[in-house]
Parts: sequence; structure tokens; C-alpha cells
Amino acid sequence: MSLTSPTPIDTANEQALQRIYTARPYLVAVRPAREFLPQLGADTILHAGPPVAWEAMCGPMQGAILGAVQYEGWAADLQSAQAFVESGRIRLQPCHSLSAVGPMTGVITPSMPLMVVENREHGNRAYCTLNEGLGKVLRFGANDASVLERLRWLQQTVAPALHTALQRLGGIDLRVMMAQALSMGDEMHQRNVAGTALLGQALLPHLVRTVPAPEPLGAIAEYLTGNAQFFLNVAMAAAKVIMDTAVGLSGCTLVTAMARNGTEFGIRLSALGERWFTAPAPMPQGLYFPGFSASDANPDMGDSAIVETLGLGAFAMSASPAVAQFLGVGGWAEARRYTEEMLEITAGRHPHLLLLTFDDLGVPCGIDVRKVVETAIVPWINTGIAHRQAGIGQIGAGVVQAPLECFVQALDAFATAYL
Amino acid sequence: MSLTSPTPIDTANEQALQRIYTARPYLVAVRPAREFLPQLGADTILHAGPPVAWEAMCGPMQGAILGAVQYEGWAADLQSAQAFVESGRIRLQPCHSLSAVGPMTGVITPSMPLMVVENREHGNRAYCTLNEGLGKVLRFGANDASVLERLRWLQQTVAPALHTALQRLGGIDLRVMMAQALSMGDEMHQRNVAGTALLGQALLPHLVRTVPAPEPLGAIAEYLTGNAQFFLNVAMAAAKVIMDTAVGLSGCTLVTAMARNGTEFGIRLSALGERWFTAPAPMPQGLYFPGFSASDANPDMGDSAIVETLGLGAFAMSASPAVAQFLGVGGWAEARRYTEEMLEITAGRHPHLLLLTFDDLGVPCGIDVRKVVETAIVPWINTGIAHRQAGIGQIGAGVVQAPLECFVQALDAFATAYL
Repeated sequence: MSLTSPTPIDTANEQALQRIYTARPYLVAVRPAREFLPQLGADTILHAGPPVAWEAMCGPMQGAILGAVQYEGWAADLQSAQAFVESGRIRLQPCHSLSAVGPMTGVITPSMPLMVVENREHGNRAYCTLNEGLGKVLRFGANDASVLERLRWLQQTVAPALHTALQRLGGIDLRVMMAQALSMGDEMHQRNVAGTALLGQALLPHLVRTVPAPEPLGAIAEYLTGNAQFFLNVAMAAAKVIMDTAVGLSGCTLVTAMARNGTEFGIRLSALGERWFTAPAPMPQGLYFPGFSASDANPDMGDSAIVETLGLGAFAMSASPAVAQFLGVGGWAEARRYTEEMLEITAGRHPHLLLLTFDDLGVPCGIDVRKVVETAIVPWINTGIAHRQAGIGQIGAGVVQAPLECFVQALDAFATAYL
Repeated sequence: MSLTSPTPIDTANEQALQRIYTARPYLVAVRPAREFLPQLGADTILHAGPPVAWEAMCGPMQGAILGAVQYEGWAADLQSAQAFVESGRIRLQPCHSLSAVGPMTGVITPSMPLMVVENREHGNRAYCTLNEGLGKVLRFGANDASVLERLRWLQQTVAPALHTALQRLGGIDLRVMMAQALSMGDEMHQRNVAGTALLGQALLPHLVRTVPAPEPLGAIAEYLTGNAQFFLNVAMAAAKVIMDTAVGLSGCTLVTAMARNGTEFGIRLSALGERWFTAPAPMPQGLYFPGFSASDANPDMGDSAIVETLGLGAFAMSASPAVAQFLGVGGWAEARRYTEEMLEITAGRHPHLLLLTFDDLGVPCGIDVRKVVETAIVPWINTGIAHRQAGIGQIGAGVVQAPLECFVQALDAFATAYL
């Protein structure tokens, strides 16, 4: 059987696409990580991207880990947190290893509240942290007292309120909400204005009937409405629960995850299960906030590229001319080119996530590693740019290209396994 | 001076456009009509469109007037309301005569709460009713006890709550919010999904700190988030306050209002002030809800065409492929054609209300009566279709073309006055 013989591979890929297309993600709960993830050891911290040892982690990820150790009460200050980690007493493993995803450093600990997205078609679940908001935040490696206090407020006040509202609602149909947001100019990676507003519309009438006013209801309402990227984490969990339905299909050459830990970029291939194929994390190209430049930037980081893996983000750039401007890649005509290019390397078009200003086509969905290697066209990813030092935060936004090397490795491994 | 001599007319038109472009509408208050409109007589009812006598009114408008008489306590039941109106004891006049606008029948009475939009650049104000929601509503001529109860709830519970929230906020910048909504696929006539969600985001954190939970806060939150057309009335008042800045400019051939009373369609021309030029109201063409057909339809009705007068609605159809589908005019390519056609008859492009998927051009703004008559291209209007009997409500949605006759009359009158 030659690599170009289409039948068994295309059949497997078509099966994967059908699962992706029919998945029905619902936001159903917001609960502490340990509750839905009993496999999460009491001594474990999850991080974004493929596996990475403490010593190889970038500054922001180390900063986030040290904050997380203090948040869990495993150490009382930064210095003892560092000693704790270096003593080898915690296990570090990728979020993806437990059906979870996290933006930027992506750090998840057992006490941290996670949004739970359930796929009502296939029964699997995926998880993502709550968006911390802007400013000094753990996901960019900040770890001072104000950061930890904010995390505890999310845990103790916000998470139970959102959970109760979701129980009243019976869950939120994210496929419908994401299709709506896409039709309203969100590509759901760097722009989540519509998704955030729609989610607030859905939750607030229930929150106001279950949370005492004026406080903490007022602060929760501000939190939900004041950060236009709130929906990113929701879209990430939805994309993860959808793409996980395609993991481990024999003979399938579709990519099921792309993720970065700030040091390495990694992908997973359906047929090869949980194995990662990695290359050095690339540097984003984009626009910097005043006072920052490319020399301040960390290599690309975060599990958020799961939205591109589904066909959103840069793949859906044509839905979002405002994002194209924000990322410095031009206006709508330029935005269309990103989507057109991604059509070259994908096996399908998602039938529910439609691009109304692009011939009503679905977003390019199902990255076929064969097409990437054959064309040398690699996935585009819309990305926030983090400062390379812990805790400074976002310094810009732009686009990044997945390293071709990951795809070449993955196809080689596929050929070894199947041909 | 010949009609085609451009200089003085073009200068006047340019002055009008500059006023339109620089107007800064803010939603600042929700108060009873009589408070901001002392000219509104205690015995007066305002209605949509150009002036129309009781006998000439269509079924829904008569139904709404009879409901309004009961709402004000001028009569206790339908029969005595009819006798009251026929006795000539109320004055009927257009909303437009008092800087107000109302959707469909557009009925406004002294006790009714109005949203107040203030133009912080030029100091004028405009007014619109609160959206009543869906189902049996006065704006479609329904007038039973449930309709009146709903109106009283809006008056006594919703309006004071919204007003207090707006005071806390210091007003909402509608130019910014409308530009945002336009970039999110609202054309702001038949689609207000984004505007409604964004307005809810702005108001709810303040409402939850000023209104007792769980009630009436829960019901108010549901009202604000449960009707995707809530923002239409806001956009109408904003369009009115903007277009009123161009009223009465000597030599200006731009249209300052288009409005329909369900019997006649009328327009006003800047240079000719408050004079109406009317023709029979046309029938909309569109899609009907199940069980209804064109034979059930009322002629076109409502002041909502003020949004097209500014350059939204059908003029901005290319921003809103979803609306083009809803109205039965096709997909995005067809939607673009509406905007392209309206570029033929307008004098400017609004510099803040941009069409991001249409070369970043502003919406076609400032209908020039000369261009309409010269090209015989008339304004398109996106419209809801009302049943011709009072109280049945909306039976479809579609598009309608302004009657050329209005524009011919207006240009004749302009020529008589100026040439």
C-alpha cells in the first residue's frame, strides 16, 4: 500500500470528520478539577502544550507553576515554592493528558475550578480553566498575592455561582452559540466579543436569581461582562471535546491537537493516539503594545491552538476582519487568504460552523498531515504574545505558523506504523 | 440657477453630512414621555409615520390607539375607548413631530416611558418607546388586558430600573456601540442580536447593584436578554437624533426622515423642514411565517425606516448576510448588491459606521433626493410584516421599496422653493 493510496486512510478520515461534525458540546458545570478528574494526582500540576521538564520551561510557565504551588498551599512563599518544585515532589504533565486545555501557561491544579464541557452525542468531556481576566494573571506567569487572591475569588465565589446558574439552565449548547458567535465576527481565538456577550445573556438571568445582590452578584456580573476574551476558554474546551472524538482512529491522518508549552510546539495525530510530535516553539509575528518589541517576546505558548485544530482562529480569519486588523495582517481581503490557504490542508468543512461571508462554507476542518507535508503549507494560528519574563503578561498579538517539522515527524511515524 | 448646478446645494448637503457624521448619540435616560416632552398635550397620542386621520388608519394602528386610550385611563374598555376617540377628544400626531420615533404603529402616550437619546455634540434629543417584546403587543395593534398589564410593568418596573442604571453609567455611547454591532452582523433594523447583547453587557452590572434580586431583577434581566430586537428601538432613537441635526438646512436636498403609518409612506427633505411628501404605503415582499401569506399583510408601517435614513438596515445589508437570508433576499453576494445600489443614491459614507467586509467603507449615508429622481433607484427598507388585522402581530419579514412618488414630489417642491 502506497502513501497515496486513498481508500483506507480516507475512510478513516471521513469517520473522524463525521464524529467532529456530529459532536454536541454543552457547557454543563464549573467544578474543582479534582472532582471530574480523579486521575489528577493530589501532587500534580497540569501545563499547556506537550510534556516539558521544569528545567526546560520558559519564564512565564515557571512563574505560573510557582504561583500554583502557593495557591494549593504546598508552599508559603516564592522561595519555598521553588525549593518544593526542585525537590521533585510535584508531577508535571500536559493538560491534554487529562482531556483538559489551558490558555498560555495553562496551569491547572487540583483545587482550581474548571469549566466542564460535555459532548452529548458521544459522551466524552473536556475541561478548561476560567478566564482570569486581564492584568496580572497566572496564565502569563504572574504569581504575587493579588494573583493568588484573584484565583481564590474565582474558586470560592465565581465558580459556585456559575455552576448553579448552569444547573438551572440545564447546560448551554455551545455548537449553537459558537456558530452564532462566528456569524458575529468572532474567530474565537483572538476575538471573543460576541461569544462573551451571548454567554453573559444566557447566564445572567439565572445568576441574578441565585446569587445575592448587590454583592457578590455585582462583581460576578462585572467579571462576566468586562473581559471580551472570557469566551476563549469556553471555545477551547468545546474544541477539545470535539477533537477528542477523533483520537485513536486506526489509519486516520487528521491532527487532533496542536499545543505549545512556550518551549516546544507539539501536535498529535489521530492514528497515533496520545503521542506528541514536537519542534521548537516558533516566535509569533504581529503587533506589539507600546513599549514592547519582538525582543521581549516569549516563543509561542498555550493550548489555545486547539481552536485552530477544529477550524476556528486563523482558519476562520475570514469571519473576522476586525481580528485581521488587530493582528496586523490587514483587512478583510487579507483575512480571506488565511482561510483559503487553510482549505488547502484540511479534509472537510464543518457543516455547522459556517462562514456567511465566504460562500456560506463551513470552516476548514480536519488538518490532514499528508496535505501539510505535500504542500508545505502549515497551519496558521492567531495568538497572543507573552513577555518572556514571568508575570509581565501580554505584550502583543499576532500570527504564528506551526513548525513543518512536527508534521513531517508525524507522517514518518504514521508511515512506519501503517505502511 | 439650474437644478444640476452643484455648488450651493452640494455645500448645504456637505454641511448636513458633517453634522450627521459628528453627532454623538448617548442613551441617557428612560422617563415618562410627558417629562421630556412638555409639548405633548395631556390629550395627545403620537403615532408612526406621516399624519393620518383616525378614519384613514389601518387596523393595527386603530387597535393600538384604542389600547393606548385604555392604558392612559381615558376609557375603561374597548367600546368606550372607540367612542372616546370618535368624539374627537384626543389629538393624533406623528411621533416625528416631537423628535420621537416608534416601531410599527409607533403609539406613544404621555405616561409611556421613553428612552432618551442625547446628542452630546449638538445638544438635541430624540425619543423612542421601550421594545415590548414578542407576542401580543401594542405596536402590532393588540390591546387586551395582558397587553396593558405588560405596558404598566414596563412603566412601573422596567423603566425606573433602566433609568437608574443609566444614571450610574453616565449614559451609553451609542455611536461606539452601533459601530460595534454593525461589525458583528447587525444591520440594526431586522437584526439586533449583537446590539442587544452589548447593551445588556453594559447595563446588567449596574442593574444588579440597584434592583432587588431575585425579583424584579430576574424578570428585568430576562426582558433585557430574551428579545433579540430590543436594540432596534435604541438604534431608532439614535438615528433620529442624528438625522434631526440635518433638518431645515437651506438648500439641502438630503432626506431627513422616511416613515410609514400603515396607510401612507412619507419622507421629509432637509431644506423643507417638517413638511411630509407622501404616497400610498407599499406592500412588503418577503417570507411569511407558517400559516400566513401576502393576502394577510398590512401595507408597510412604522418609523423604523429612520435607520435606513441614516444608512443602516437595508443600506447596510452587506454587513448582515444572516438578515439577507431571513428576509428572503439571498446570501451575502445578494446582500452586497443592496448596499451597492444604495451607494448610487447617497451623498456620503458614514466615517464611523463601517462595513468591514465591504472595503472598510462607511455605510451609504445621506439620501439625496436628486439622485433618487435622476436614477429612479429608490431606498430599500428591511421590514417586519404586520397582519392587517389589529393584534395578530408579525406574520413575516422582508424588504420594501420607498415609493418614487414621494421623492418626485419632494424634488418638485424643492425646485419651487429654491430655483
